[in-house]
Amino acid sequence: MEERGQVTGLTKGRVEALTDGIFAFAMTLLVTTLDFPNSTTTLPPITVSSLVSLYTPDLLHYVIAFAVLAGFWVTHHIQFHYIQAMDRTALWTNITCLLFVALVPFTTALAGDYPDSPLAAMVFEVNLLIIGLLILLIWNYATVGRRLVEKTLDEKVVILHTRRSLIIPVISVIGILLALAGSTWSTAVYLLSVPFILAIKRYS
Amino acid sequence: MEERGQVTGLTKGRVEALTDGIFAFAMTLLVTTLDFPNSTTTLPPITVSSLVSLYTPDLLHYVIAFAVLAGFWVTHHIQFHYIQAMDRTALWTNITCLLFVALVPFTTALAGDYPDSPLAAMVFEVNLLIIGLLILLIWNYATVGRRLVEKTLDEKVVILHTRRSLIIPVISVIGILLALAGSTWSTAVYLLSVPFILAIKRYS
Amino acid sequence: MEERGQVTGLTKGRVEALTDGIFAFAMTLLVTTLDFPNSTTTLPPITVSSLVSLYTPDLLHYVIAFAVLAGFWVTHHIQFHYIQAMDRTALWTNITCLLFVALVPFTTALAGDYPDSPLAAMVFEVNLLIIGLLILLIWNYATVGRRLVEKTLDEKVVILHTRRSLIIPVISVIGILLALAGSTWSTAVYLLSVPFILAIKRYS
Amino acid sequence: MEERGQVTGLTKGRVEALTDGIFAFAMTLLVTTLDFPNSTTTLPPITVSSLVSLYTPDLLHYVIAFAVLAGFWVTHHIQFHYIQAMDRTALWTNITCLLFVALVPFTTALAGDYPDSPLAAMVFEVNLLIIGLLILLIWNYATVGRRLVEKTLDEKVVILHTRRSLIIPVISVIGILLALAGSTWSTAVYLLSVPFILAIKRYS
Repeated sequence: MEERGQVTGLTKGRVEALTDGIFAFAMTLLVTTLDFPNSTTTLPPITVSSLVSLYTPDLLHYVIAFAVLAGFWVTHHIQFHYIQAMDRTALWTNITCLLFVALVPFTTALAGDYPDSPLAAMVFEVNLLIIGLLILLIWNYATVGRRLVEKTLDEKVVILHTRRSLIIPVISVIGILLALAGSTWSTAVYLLSVPFILAIKRYS
Repeated sequence: MEERGQVTGLTKGRVEALTDGIFAFAMTLLVTTLDFPNSTTTLPPITVSSLVSLYTPDLLHYVIAFAVLAGFWVTHHIQFHYIQAMDRTALWTNITCLLFVALVPFTTALAGDYPDSPLAAMVFEVNLLIIGLLILLIWNYATVGRRLVEKTLDEKVVILHTRRSLIIPVISVIGILLALAGSTWSTAVYLLSVPFILAIKRYS
Repeated sequence: MEERGQVTGLTKGRVEALTDGIFAFAMTLLVTTLDFPNSTTTLPPITVSSLVSLYTPDLLHYVIAFAVLAGFWVTHHIQFHYIQAMDRTALWTNITCLLFVALVPFTTALAGDYPDSPLAAMVFEVNLLIIGLLILLIWNYATVGRRLVEKTLDEKVVILHTRRSLIIPVISVIGILLALAGSTWSTAVYLLSVPFILAIKRYS
Repeated sequence: MEERGQVTGLTKGRVEALTDGIFAFAMTLLVTTLDFPNSTTTLPPITVSSLVSLYTPDLLHYVIAFAVLAGFWVTHHIQFHYIQAMDRTALWTNITCLLFVALVPFTTALAGDYPDSPLAAMVFEVNLLIIGLLILLIWNYATVGRRLVEKTLDEKVVILHTRRSLIIPVISVIGILLALAGSTWSTAVYLLSVPFILAIKRYS
């Protein structure tokens, strides 16, 4: 029934649908990390300075998490443009990747609510590192021996997207090292690297 | 691999799928701004007057936010009907727009829970203003020099949809000015402008 | 650009996508009405009797709301099978309907957390009544003069689906009357009517 | 209008869309069982040991629930690959199945927050058992007499997928028996059975 590890009836399109759904929900759920006021309990007074002090770290991590997830989503779609088929290994590696994508709202909440904790920042960075490595793993698995891509796919394309898939993992490792060194704002490394990413993309 | 800034494998359809997902989810998440009762804590007694006093501001902002997001969604789809292709700039402007769409449940909760605060209303109005301006920006970027639309697209269509995209930003600026002047119900300006919008749409 | 109130680029398919999304999310969000335990606060001891007493009303309303929303979703799709086109009026009536669909998790939480309150039950029943009437309204609007359906559509089909669309509104009105009479379990009327609905469907 | 119990306008594709939506959303909502910190209340200090003790049971159940739901989703799609049509019975059995899928975030929260309670683990296992049995029921209903599948479908395919659909129910029954015997970590049975499942799949 199922040859070469392929899963009957599970086309690339269906896996993309689940992936799109989980990415869209995880990105929207990020907003719940902003600690909504709740009028059934006593509300603190609201002033410009209270809003700024209460929500600046939350908002910063919301923007980072949303942008990084969007970047992963773009990468995922570029890869699936080249991938022609799904087998059991690629399917479950992708599901494991989605498990960590769905976890991002939680680690974002941790990092945003403990802005002074290098540990909370590190948990967030390790989460993004794992997603990045799993996306890289799917790409390698699919392209080594042209297992799930066209036999004639140019090696340059393989190398280009391997390099791009390394960007977020490298930034995450830098962030983790900064956090280990005691920095409390190590997650800012994702924002600082934006001009760097744009430059790489232009010349790659 | 990628000519003229196009992103391999990211078709208009895929961007629409992510956009539909985030809009639908953000619109449904709005309901969580209504401060659900929680039976694991002590529940306040429920009467018609307690329901009215507790939920009127929340419900009002729920309706405004749902209707404005629905309007943005309609506008987005009309624009994407004309847009033929995606490039990197349009993609990331769209993702930035979605970042602010996903933020609406939070700013709606703020405005609904602090009905007496012009500041909370202003945060909500600024959020809608930014979404409106980003949608306008995508339209301008796509149509200037017919960059991402058909070369033969009638200038009248461009002007018509530019004007329509200005409606929510203009209302938001009026709301922000009212809030700055100290009005506590500045968000009602979105409801008051409904007959005005219907009139414009009929004669445009 | 837009003839006879039609909205450029907004096909029936796109409206169905938003509708599917909001129905799926609202139905899944219903689970949050079950008052999750939260291990960051003190947890009550867990026993069979505490689970039963704490969650029976919540679960009952979860099942009712899930089943009624599923029924509305089925009805919506049967109607959209016959509807050929969308105009501005049908679009915004549908969006208003979705606004009340997205509200169901909130009114379900109210009814489940105040099982002894006829008022809370009534709010829930009024919510379902409004959704039912709006779905009926779309069907009437689309079929009167065969406005948005095929000109040759059999009048029997129109009448059949009008009758079916009346089932939930009629049950809701009975529930509201029971609640007004002081009954605390008026929402059970939705469950009691299941065999009745099955009988109607068989012989219609 | 509707022959042999078929529902007009409700194609297999539409049912798959609702199913995909509810699965994706339920899997993403699982993250909310991790008890996000909330910066509007007093935050406990964060250390490696507090994170580990607070979140280990939650994370374990998050991983189990995500993986089991992903497995159900894969099974569902394989079945729908063979199923050619939907009738009223299959539709509502599927909706009932989705009702229990949407319930998983709640029972996962129970099991994760009461790691020392065999009762909480049992509620979680019963939930997964019911989903598994309903998926099996749909498969049996569709294939007995080749009711909703191709008349020529090989009996070997029917038996293969019946066996596979029994894996999670069997594991759940083992978990329930362990919980009844007083074991506090009965849910770990899902993890322990992974190598077993892989072996079965290879040789089936």
